[in-house]
Amino acid sequence: TGERKFFGEFLINAQGEDVVAGVRTPQKLDAREGGLQEFLPEAYAQLWKIQEVLEKHYRDMQDIEFTIEKGKLYILQTRHGKRTAAAALKIAVDMAEEGLISQKEALLRVKPQQLDQLLHPCLDPSSPNVVIATGVPASPGAVSGQVVFDSETAQTWVKQWKRAVILVRLETSPEDIQGMALARGVLTARGGMTSHAAVVARGMGLACISGCSQMKVRSKEFHTGTHLVREGDWITLDGSTGEVMLGQVPTLLPTLGEDFRKFMSWVDRTCSLEVRANADTGVDARIARNFGAQGVGLCRTEHMFFDVTRIDAVREMIVAETSEARRLALEKILPMQKSDFQSIFREMEGFPVTIRLLDPPLHEFLPQQLSEVELLASKLEISREELQRKIERLHEFNPMLGHRGCRLGVSYPEIYRTQVRAIFEAACELSQQGVRVQPEIMIPLVGDWRELKFVRDYCDQEASAVFQSYDCKMDYRIGTMIELPRAALTAGEIAEYADFFSFGTNDLTQTTWGLSRDDSGSFLNAYLEAGIYQEDPFASLDRFGVGRLMQIAMEEGRLKKPELKIGLCGEHGGEPASVEYCHDLHLDYVSCSPYRIPIAKLAASQAYLRAQK
Amino acid sequence: TGERKFFGEFLINAQGEDVVAGVRTPQKLDAREGGLQEFLPEAYAQLWKIQEVLEKHYRDMQDIEFTIEKGKLYILQTRHGKRTAAAALKIAVDMAEEGLISQKEALLRVKPQQLDQLLHPCLDPSSPNVVIATGVPASPGAVSGQVVFDSETAQTWVKQWKRAVILVRLETSPEDIQGMALARGVLTARGGMTSHAAVVARGMGLACISGCSQMKVRSKEFHTGTHLVREGDWITLDGSTGEVMLGQVPTLLPTLGEDFRKFMSWVDRTCSLEVRANADTGVDARIARNFGAQGVGLCRTEHMFFDVTRIDAVREMIVAETSEARRLALEKILPMQKSDFQSIFREMEGFPVTIRLLDPPLHEFLPQQLSEVELLASKLEISREELQRKIERLHEFNPMLGHRGCRLGVSYPEIYRTQVRAIFEAACELSQQGVRVQPEIMIPLVGDWRELKFVRDYCDQEASAVFQSYDCKMDYRIGTMIELPRAALTAGEIAEYADFFSFGTNDLTQTTWGLSRDDSGSFLNAYLEAGIYQEDPFASLDRFGVGRLMQIAMEEGRLKKPELKIGLCGEHGGEPASVEYCHDLHLDYVSCSPYRIPIAKLAASQAYLRAQK
Repeated sequence: TGERKFFGEFLINAQGEDVVAGVRTPQKLDAREGGLQEFLPEAYAQLWKIQEVLEKHYRDMQDIEFTIEKGKLYILQTRHGKRTAAAALKIAVDMAEEGLISQKEALLRVKPQQLDQLLHPCLDPSSPNVVIATGVPASPGAVSGQVVFDSETAQTWVKQWKRAVILVRLETSPEDIQGMALARGVLTARGGMTSHAAVVARGMGLACISGCSQMKVRSKEFHTGTHLVREGDWITLDGSTGEVMLGQVPTLLPTLGEDFRKFMSWVDRTCSLEVRANADTGVDARIARNFGAQGVGLCRTEHMFFDVTRIDAVREMIVAETSEARRLALEKILPMQKSDFQSIFREMEGFPVTIRLLDPPLHEFLPQQLSEVELLASKLEISREELQRKIERLHEFNPMLGHRGCRLGVSYPEIYRTQVRAIFEAACELSQQGVRVQPEIMIPLVGDWRELKFVRDYCDQEASAVFQSYDCKMDYRIGTMIELPRAALTAGEIAEYADFFSFGTNDLTQTTWGLSRDDSGSFLNAYLEAGIYQEDPFASLDRFGVGRLMQIAMEEGRLKKPELKIGLCGEHGGEPASVEYCHDLHLDYVSCSPYRIPIAKLAASQAYLRAQK
Repeated sequence: TGERKFFGEFLINAQGEDVVAGVRTPQKLDAREGGLQEFLPEAYAQLWKIQEVLEKHYRDMQDIEFTIEKGKLYILQTRHGKRTAAAALKIAVDMAEEGLISQKEALLRVKPQQLDQLLHPCLDPSSPNVVIATGVPASPGAVSGQVVFDSETAQTWVKQWKRAVILVRLETSPEDIQGMALARGVLTARGGMTSHAAVVARGMGLACISGCSQMKVRSKEFHTGTHLVREGDWITLDGSTGEVMLGQVPTLLPTLGEDFRKFMSWVDRTCSLEVRANADTGVDARIARNFGAQGVGLCRTEHMFFDVTRIDAVREMIVAETSEARRLALEKILPMQKSDFQSIFREMEGFPVTIRLLDPPLHEFLPQQLSEVELLASKLEISREELQRKIERLHEFNPMLGHRGCRLGVSYPEIYRTQVRAIFEAACELSQQGVRVQPEIMIPLVGDWRELKFVRDYCDQEASAVFQSYDCKMDYRIGTMIELPRAALTAGEIAEYADFFSFGTNDLTQTTWGLSRDDSGSFLNAYLEAGIYQEDPFASLDRFGVGRLMQIAMEEGRLKKPELKIGLCGEHGGEPASVEYCHDLHLDYVSCSPYRIPIAKLAASQAYLRAQK
C-alpha cells in the first residue's frame, strides 16, 4: 500500500471530538471512512503527533495539508481550521482549560455571530435541499412544516391534529397572532424587516421570512414561478438566510451545554457594556434573563394593544370622537397593560425595565378588509360607512413620518397618561409586595425638547398621583429615544429634560438615509451587488452617517448632563460590529432581542478585550 | 360741534394716496366719511401739519393717536403706520425720491412677504365674507368660481360656456391636469403642501387649497358640516390663508406699476445672493425671467412625464419587464422631453438651467381606479390582472423613503440615460443655432458618494456621446441635491463627485424631523397652538436641525472643493427669513417658484444691506 499516493487534509471534525483525514482525490471516500488509518497507520499516527506540535505552536486548531508519496509523509501547509460554532466553543474552552491559551484568547476566538447557530435550529449542512424562493431573513431559525394559508387552519391543524405548520400569508395582521403563535414559522409575500410578521416573529423567537415577492399567493396555494405549493405540502424555511425550500430538510437542534455556560460566564466577567433585552412580555423577559440580560431596554407597548382580547377596546379608543370617550375605552385596557407590566417587572426584578409609550400610528390597529370592518362596526354599534370614513381619515401617505410616537402623546395625552398610570400602579403594587422594580419610561420620536418637556410634565404628574394614592415612592427615570436626526442635532437641549437617551437606530437609519426598511428590499440587493452600499445599513450600523449623529448626540447630551445614561435599542443592538462600535463610543448599554443576547455580550466582551490591548 | 369728543387715529390710507381720520368710538362712521374734516376743520388741518412734522422726524409714515376735547387737539401717541403692500412700496419709493430716506432705507422698509399681495389677486379687505372651511394654503391668490367636481366638466364649462370654475376633488392625479390648467383654483380634501394638486398649482401660478379635511366630497356636491355646496355654486378660495368662502367675494387685482419696477431695480443692485426659479416648462421660465430670475434652479422632469399626451408611454415604460422594452418606451418620450428642455433653455438664454433627473417613485405614474387600470391594460395589450399585479408590486409603505430619486437611476440606468441624452441633444441643437445654453444636471436623493459616482459616470458618458454625434461641445455641470441627512453628514466625500450642491430643504426637513409634509396637517396645528413648534418647519427653515446639517455640508463640501457652487431649491427659497439665513450662510443662490422671485430678491437684498451695517 506504500505505492498508493495520498494527499489531503487533517483536522478535527465539526463536533470537535475526533480527527479525520479528508483526502482530496481520488481516494476521498476511502480517507473519510478511515482509509488512511487502515492503509497507512504509521503516517496516521505521525499526523496526530504533528497536529499536536503544530497546535501548540500556533495555539489554535490546525487544518493540515499533506501528501504521502512512496510511504513518506510530507506536510504541505497548515492553517487555522474552520469550525462550526459548537466546535469553536469546545475548542476554545478546552484549550483555555488546558492552559494552552488564556481565557481572554478563548473569548476572542469565537465569532459572536456563530453563537446564533447554537441558539436556533439550523439546517443540517450535509443534507441536500431545493431552494424555491428567497425573501427577507426576518427572524432566524430553520424549521419545516406543512403549509397553511390562514390563522384558523393553523390553529385547527396544530391543536386538533398535532401537525407542524408554516403559516403563509400575503402579509400578517393582528388577527393572525393566534395562528402565528402555534406555527413553526411564518412566510409572507410582502413586508420587510419591520413588517408585522417580522417584528412579531422575532418577539416570539419564531422563524420568519418576509417580503418573499417571488411568491404569488392565491387561495390555498402559492406559486414561485417554478414551483406550485398547495395547502398541506411540506416546506422548510431558513430564517437566517431567507431561503424557502421544498419538503422537510433535516435540521440540527441547538444544544446549550456546559461549554456554553462556562464560556458565557467568562464573557460576563469581561463585559463593560451592559446588554439588555427588547422584551414585550413576561415570557420574553424570562427568556432574556436566562440568556443573561441586564434589564429590559425596550418594551414595546403596542404589542400589548394588538392582543386579540384587547384589540376591540383599542379600536374603540381610536375611533372615539372625544377625549372623554377615548379615556373610557382606555380604562378597559389599563388593567390588562398593568398585568403585562407586572409580569415583566417580576421577571426582571432588580434590573431596570424601559417601557416605551405607544409608538405606531393609530391606523395600524384598525382592520383593512371589508368583512372585518363590518364586524367591527357592528361591535362598536356604528354604521360601516361611518367607520370606513374614520379609517380613511386616519390614512397616511408616509406613516413612518406621520402621526405617531410622542405626536400621539401631544394630540391625545389621555393615551400616554393611561399607560403611565398602568406602569406606576403595577410598580407600586409589586413594590409593596417587596419586589424591587426600576421603571423607566421612554418617549418615542422626539425631535424637539419642547415635545419631551410637554409629555414629561404630565407623566411626572401621573407618577406623583399614583405614588400618593398607593402611599408609595420609588426612583424612576423618564427618557427619550434618539431616533430622528433632529433629536441628535439638538441633543444638548433635549438632555435637559431626559434622564436617559436610547438610540433607536432602526428609525434613525431610516431617516438619516431617507430609506424605508420595509420598502428597500426592491433595490437594496442591486445596491449591494453594485458595491454602492457596502452593507445593509439596517443590519450593520452606518458609522459615517448614523454614527456621526450618535457621536454628536452623546457629546452634546453629556456636556449638558454628565450623568445622562445612554443606550441603544433596535436591531443593531444584536449585531456584533455595531455592538463593538457602541462599546467604543462609550454607550452604557445596548438592547437586543432575547435570542441575540449571548451574541451581543460576546461582541461587547471582545470589544472590551481589544480596547485593553 | 366743539362739544363733540373725538378720539382716534390719523394715518395715510391703504392706497397711500390720501389721508383719513379713523375715529374709534362712538363716531367711527362719521369720521370715516370725513366727519372730522367736516365738523372740526381746524383740528383736521392741524393734524395734517403735525403729521408732516412727525413724518420728517421719524422718517416714516406715522399712525397718530389723538383726542379732541372741548375743541382742543391732544396727540396721545404716534408710531410707524401699518400699510398695504402697495402703500408701503409707494411710500418707500416716494420718500427715497424726495431724499427723505436713502434707497437703502427704502429697501429695508418694505416687508418681502408683503410683495405677495402685489403679485396675486387678494381679497378686498373691505368686503365681508363667510368662511365655510379651512385647508392647507397650498398656492397663493384669491379667486372665485363655480364649483365643478371633475376635469371634464371643468373643460366643458370653461371652453364652451366661458365660465370661471373652481375644481374640487378628493385629491388630484395626472388625469386632472387639463381641468386644472383651465380652472381658476383647485380645492382638495386630501393632501398637503407637496400633494399633486399643490405642486402643480404652484407651478401653474394657480390658487390652491389642499388637505381641506372638513370638506366631505360626494358626487357633484360637498359638505362642510355647516354648508352644502353643489356643482355650479360659487365659492371663493384664498390660497394665501387656506380659507374657503361662500359666493363671490370681491378681489383686488395685482398691479405692477412704475413704483414696483423702480423698487425692484434698486433691489437688483443690492443683492449678492442669486435668485433662480423653480420652472418646469418654457411658460414658467418666461414668467420667472420677467420677474428677474437669474436661471432655473430646479426643473422637475416628472411633470413632463405627467403630461396627458405622454403618460401612456411613461406607463408603458414602467410596466416593461426588460430594460430593452423600457428603453423602447423611453425612446417615445425622448423627443417630447427634448422640446421641453429646448423651450426652457431658450427662455433662460445666458443663464444656467438646473434639470433634476426623475425623482418620484414610479407607482405615482400608474392609475389607481379600476376603470383606468382596465383602460391602460387594454392599451398595453395585457390582462387587467397582470397590470394589477404589477401595480401592486410597486406599492410602497412609505414612498417618500422608497424606490425613488437616484435609486431609480441605479436600478434602471436607461431612464436617466435617456433623460440626459434629451438634455444634451436639446442643448447641442440650440447651441448650433447660436443660443447660449448652460445645462446643469442634478441627481436627486443621494445619500452616499458611491451613488453619485455611479450615476455621474454614465451621465458623463451620455454627454460625450451626444457631443460627438453633434460635433458640438459645451460646459456643463453635474451636481446633487443635498436632501438627506446622510448626504449632509458625508458632504466632504460627495463633493468630490459633484460640481454643485443644491439643498432640497423640503425633503431634508421631512427626514431631519421624521415628518411627512403631506401627513403633518393632522397634528401640526395642535403643535403650533401648544407652542411646541414655533413655526411650521416646512414654511420657515429650521436653523437648529436642518440649518445645522446645511452648515456641516457647506463647510465640509467647500473644504474638499472650494469652487463648489451651493444653492437651495424648495419652498424655503421663497420665504424671507429662510432667504436671509441662506444669505448669511454664504450660499450662492436660492431657487423658488416664479411668483416668489421678487420676494426672495428683496429678502436677499435686505440680508445684504443688514450685513453691511
